[in-house]
Amino acid sequence: MDQYSDALGNLVDSFARLPGIGRKSAQRLAFHILKQPKQEAYQLAKAIVNAKEKIKYCQICYNLTDQDICPICSDPNRDPSIICVVEDARDVMALERVHEFKGLYHVLNGAISPIDGIGPEQLKIRELLLRLQDETIQEIIIATNTNIEGEATAMYLSNLLKPLGIKITRIAQGLPVGGDIQYADEITLAKAFNGRWEI
Amino acid sequence: MDQYSDALGNLVDSFARLPGIGRKSAQRLAFHILKQPKQEAYQLAKAIVNAKEKIKYCQICYNLTDQDICPICSDPNRDPSIICVVEDARDVMALERVHEFKGLYHVLNGAISPIDGIGPEQLKIRELLLRLQDETIQEIIIATNTNIEGEATAMYLSNLLKPLGIKITRIAQGLPVGGDIQYADEITLAKAFNGRWEI
Repeated sequence: MDQYSDALGNLVDSFARLPGIGRKSAQRLAFHILKQPKQEAYQLAKAIVNAKEKIKYCQICYNLTDQDICPICSDPNRDPSIICVVEDARDVMALERVHEFKGLYHVLNGAISPIDGIGPEQLKIRELLLRLQDETIQEIIIATNTNIEGEATAMYLSNLLKPLGIKITRIAQGLPVGGDIQYADEITLAKAFNGRWEI
Repeated sequence: MDQYSDALGNLVDSFARLPGIGRKSAQRLAFHILKQPKQEAYQLAKAIVNAKEKIKYCQICYNLTDQDICPICSDPNRDPSIICVVEDARDVMALERVHEFKGLYHVLNGAISPIDGIGPEQLKIRELLLRLQDETIQEIIIATNTNIEGEATAMYLSNLLKPLGIKITRIAQGLPVGGDIQYADEITLAKAFNGRWEI
């Protein structure tokens, strides 16, 4: 690509550095930007700068927000006695789309993963313990992912929080809705059996 | 996503507007940007602005460049008697990687496609005719794509240029290297047969 200018090479490199975007896609995106009217192309640049400048962590739940306290934490209609602990702000997004949960959240910003050098002290667990000093909290729902890191985090949290005398629950695991028993993996099937309930 | 701030929503929207990036990927990219150190995140924004400001069309061949005349057109070692006509600046990139062609290029910036409202007047064909007034040009290689639009453009160009008495050639079509005859489509096979050469 050395017949091209640094400016184009830089743009391709910058796109290629994003997760899940290879060199071919990066090239396609760069040429798309070059073909767009200036105003439209600048929109993405502005959105990046704007987001980086405005978005920060909620001081209570560590969700991403453009205010000091996120709209969920400051909503008086939400039930402050239940806290749902998730790994990532995107999990809050996904759960909010369901309109099922009316309590508050606590975003850990990751999961315990020794292989990536992430221990409990890298997560917002100390901050969760501080929140639990508030006597109104009656239940903690652990909604970390159901993979190894998420399970390890759930286990760690339940061991840590059980002595505090608060009700600790874990989201249900089993066959997804519309799931085929013949295609389900063994662990999911075992979880589905162990978690069976009377109809 | 209404529990999120405009800044994050805007960033997701801006990514989702890029070709080949759906909402899920746009969300992943936006969160990646938010997690990055400010300096790294700004790099992409800067690269976009920089590219849009610096990169323009070469005044001779309409390739993309940051100079008035692109490095290929201004290279005295290239053969000015052969011009390879391509649809897009990316085609120049691809052909340059092969190190096979030592002539000059002419980028049409598209192909004739009535369904998209692109006729010959939207392409850099007038500019190609102007270049052909230079008597040194002896051969035009038409290297438009081998799809319907590319073929239509090749046909149009050859009809237009034949009367000028310049040698007009078209890149070869046939089985790609490593291709399997049993998996090739009929048109490619027919082209491969018609274009056979004596060994």
